[in-house]
Amino acid sequence: MTADAKRVITLLHNGVIVTMDPDTRVFQTGGILIDGDIISKIGHSSDLLDQFKDHAHEIIDLEGKILLPGFINTHVHTSQQLGRGIADDVDLMTWLHQRIWPYEANMTKEDSYISTLLCGIELIRSGVTCFAEAGGQHVSEMARAVEVLGLRACLAQSTMDSGQGLPGNWALHTTDYCIQSQKQLYSKHHDTADGRIRIWLGIRQIMNATDKLLIDTRDTAKELKTGIHMHVAEIPYENQLVVDTREVDHGTVTYLEKINFLQGNLLAAHSVWVSEAEIDLLSKAEVKVSHCPAAAMRMLGFAPIKEMMDSGICVSLGTDGAPSNNRMSIVDEMYLASLVNKGREAYIKGTTDPTALPAETILKMATINGAKSVLWDNEIGSLQIRKKADLIIVDPFSWSMVPVNDCISSLVYSMRTENIESVMCNGLWVMKNRKILTVNEGDVLLSAKKASNELLKRAGIVIPNRMNVI
Amino acid sequence: MTADAKRVITLLHNGVIVTMDPDTRVFQTGGILIDGDIISKIGHSSDLLDQFKDHAHEIIDLEGKILLPGFINTHVHTSQQLGRGIADDVDLMTWLHQRIWPYEANMTKEDSYISTLLCGIELIRSGVTCFAEAGGQHVSEMARAVEVLGLRACLAQSTMDSGQGLPGNWALHTTDYCIQSQKQLYSKHHDTADGRIRIWLGIRQIMNATDKLLIDTRDTAKELKTGIHMHVAEIPYENQLVVDTREVDHGTVTYLEKINFLQGNLLAAHSVWVSEAEIDLLSKAEVKVSHCPAAAMRMLGFAPIKEMMDSGICVSLGTDGAPSNNRMSIVDEMYLASLVNKGREAYIKGTTDPTALPAETILKMATINGAKSVLWDNEIGSLQIRKKADLIIVDPFSWSMVPVNDCISSLVYSMRTENIESVMCNGLWVMKNRKILTVNEGDVLLSAKKASNELLKRAGIVIPNRMNVI
Repeated sequence: MTADAKRVITLLHNGVIVTMDPDTRVFQTGGILIDGDIISKIGHSSDLLDQFKDHAHEIIDLEGKILLPGFINTHVHTSQQLGRGIADDVDLMTWLHQRIWPYEANMTKEDSYISTLLCGIELIRSGVTCFAEAGGQHVSEMARAVEVLGLRACLAQSTMDSGQGLPGNWALHTTDYCIQSQKQLYSKHHDTADGRIRIWLGIRQIMNATDKLLIDTRDTAKELKTGIHMHVAEIPYENQLVVDTREVDHGTVTYLEKINFLQGNLLAAHSVWVSEAEIDLLSKAEVKVSHCPAAAMRMLGFAPIKEMMDSGICVSLGTDGAPSNNRMSIVDEMYLASLVNKGREAYIKGTTDPTALPAETILKMATINGAKSVLWDNEIGSLQIRKKADLIIVDPFSWSMVPVNDCISSLVYSMRTENIESVMCNGLWVMKNRKILTVNEGDVLLSAKKASNELLKRAGIVIPNRMNVI
Repeated sequence: MTADAKRVITLLHNGVIVTMDPDTRVFQTGGILIDGDIISKIGHSSDLLDQFKDHAHEIIDLEGKILLPGFINTHVHTSQQLGRGIADDVDLMTWLHQRIWPYEANMTKEDSYISTLLCGIELIRSGVTCFAEAGGQHVSEMARAVEVLGLRACLAQSTMDSGQGLPGNWALHTTDYCIQSQKQLYSKHHDTADGRIRIWLGIRQIMNATDKLLIDTRDTAKELKTGIHMHVAEIPYENQLVVDTREVDHGTVTYLEKINFLQGNLLAAHSVWVSEAEIDLLSKAEVKVSHCPAAAMRMLGFAPIKEMMDSGICVSLGTDGAPSNNRMSIVDEMYLASLVNKGREAYIKGTTDPTALPAETILKMATINGAKSVLWDNEIGSLQIRKKADLIIVDPFSWSMVPVNDCISSLVYSMRTENIESVMCNGLWVMKNRKILTVNEGDVLLSAKKASNELLKRAGIVIPNRMNVI
């Protein structure tokens, strides 16, 4: 909390306020008072205006606008942003061995910093105020970028202490190194940047983790009171390998239960290939699931999201990384989550179910469920008194949303990034009237273009031409 | 062709030109000369600049930009734009009986005009220069709007001469009326607006068409040398009804073949529930298919697009109408077509196929295949000498596309509407530097908001609240 932010009192009034609180209250003509980094009042616009118009340093009239909690992206590889387009339309092995691993193995610290800045700009423009990093190499550089961007984040290192096929210049680390380096990152960065940065533990995936790494990670997370971010049950091959090598009858989730790894602080990304019994295990252990519709459709398959939510699992939304999706936008993921999960029913029932995952459920996934997934719902995920001021202003008066006949569905199905006008995180504006305030956007784009070119050259990644270039 | 447009010679140079011609040529530093409404030269930038810089009335430097043929949206209900959000997350029967039919039955001519203007703005901003109207009530009003918008379109009336459950104030027409009214529309509007408007024949769907209507439509289309736009094989129920009532062993496509309705001038929308044998029938008859990924995922199911394309069917892309999709953007449909068709393989093979429908195929669907689908590929769909100047300028230097490591995939998977900077149709700019030039966008938005409110009231359509509105 900076001294400056503490002093500022901001009054936003005369807008539709979608609180996402436990009563799902929507104020049709609402107001909200922000005192420093905290929401101090919320209610009908006229009441707030009467009471506080003389105390506020900034008064914003939201006429025709919609106020929402900031979105939470619970699975994003910020370090992969420079790799957008390097692995489109290729099979999974080419994707991993010839594109992603060489890319990550050749990434410098500065690349990681620039990549996170570039990704952060896309996150901000898509209304994201908090994200969970899926795990990269240079966490300190991510932290440096997040501090500058003004976002809130749970950062994690990508750890691997076993597995095959990794690039030669990217040696595996020992289990101890994996744990110790994460403890150091925790000491250095946890609860920094005015409390916006938290350090989580990372497990890349079970195929690159020994039992010791899994168990030490579980215990270290408990000791540090933090979360674990892990890719879980992504492809059938992964489950099969677990069955073959780890003596269980199904896959990753079954095995993780066996070693008591499934806990409320585990954020399981994707979780596409899980059985009914495994859904029960996840539910009982209160594991959180990050659903990434675009990446799943492209690379993995259809996760049983409806079944997970029916069993009480907290499911949130993620974009995954740029080489798995291209669009790092929770706005688009909301639209996709609806379509994918309605469409998926066609294979179960013979017809789609247009009522599956309605808009209000999807909006919950992108806000309060996101907050629960990153273990931060005591402070973010809804607009409520005493929570942090993480919020976005949407202007629906454009070709993309008019007419707004159903406000909530319109936010989920019609809204485009263009409609997100302003973004506040921790009481400070990071974007106002579509201008990013925390970094120079043009400079970041130029640096990113240059860094990406050089990184691809260094890594020897060549993208074949798709057409007859002359 | 107006006299003004004829006189203007425009030189665009120094950009990446993705021609979509039969050789799929891409000029890395290309130029294009437009003489009136026609592309008169295309080649390397320096050659064109040397030769024509003194003759051109307008010279545009495309440095860093990408030039493409305008996109073609082959299935859109322009009259449904005012109904955006009226039928989200409801089952198919509620969708049709309580929302869409009351909406359409209560639509005035002026509503249709405003709806088409509003839809047209979204089409232009999404880079569409030509569209195929799926069939509405007030074709003359659509034509009036298209003339003003400056777009190219194949317009069709929605015809129904049988079927149950239609609103009382929306009587069925006789078969003769259906045919005669379309002939009149043809006389009045075909080849008007400088040749930008064509009139097609429409069949809403087989469940609302007698055999006589089908056969007379087929024969009238032949007589007028025009196309037929029809929803085909949308849901399993439709196929079953055809089996039950029309004495064939599968569904709509099988029946249409039996009555010799399948021809090269048929544009079949959706075609989700077709058997392998029916794919063959469509292919042999050279029927064109409009694939609408969003609407299909939400309401219909997964069309066998890969199989259709493998069998040689010309498949293009459509958005469907706003109450089936919300986003009327071919830019988003390209992204979706990739994801949906990669994901669909998971149910066939047990894993997705990330190589299915690669970006270059999808770009073809949105351009030259679109042109073939609307029987207009002699003049549009690619940037070639003597074709019409229908084109778009894309600016990829933004948070949504940087870094552009794979130009073609970047256009399909990363591009957002924000990246479309300028749109030219028939040699005239309809959008330049993100400003729509043909209509006053703000005025259209205001009229649309008002018209939509009044139409819903008139139709008695009430959208329930999804949250606790106070």
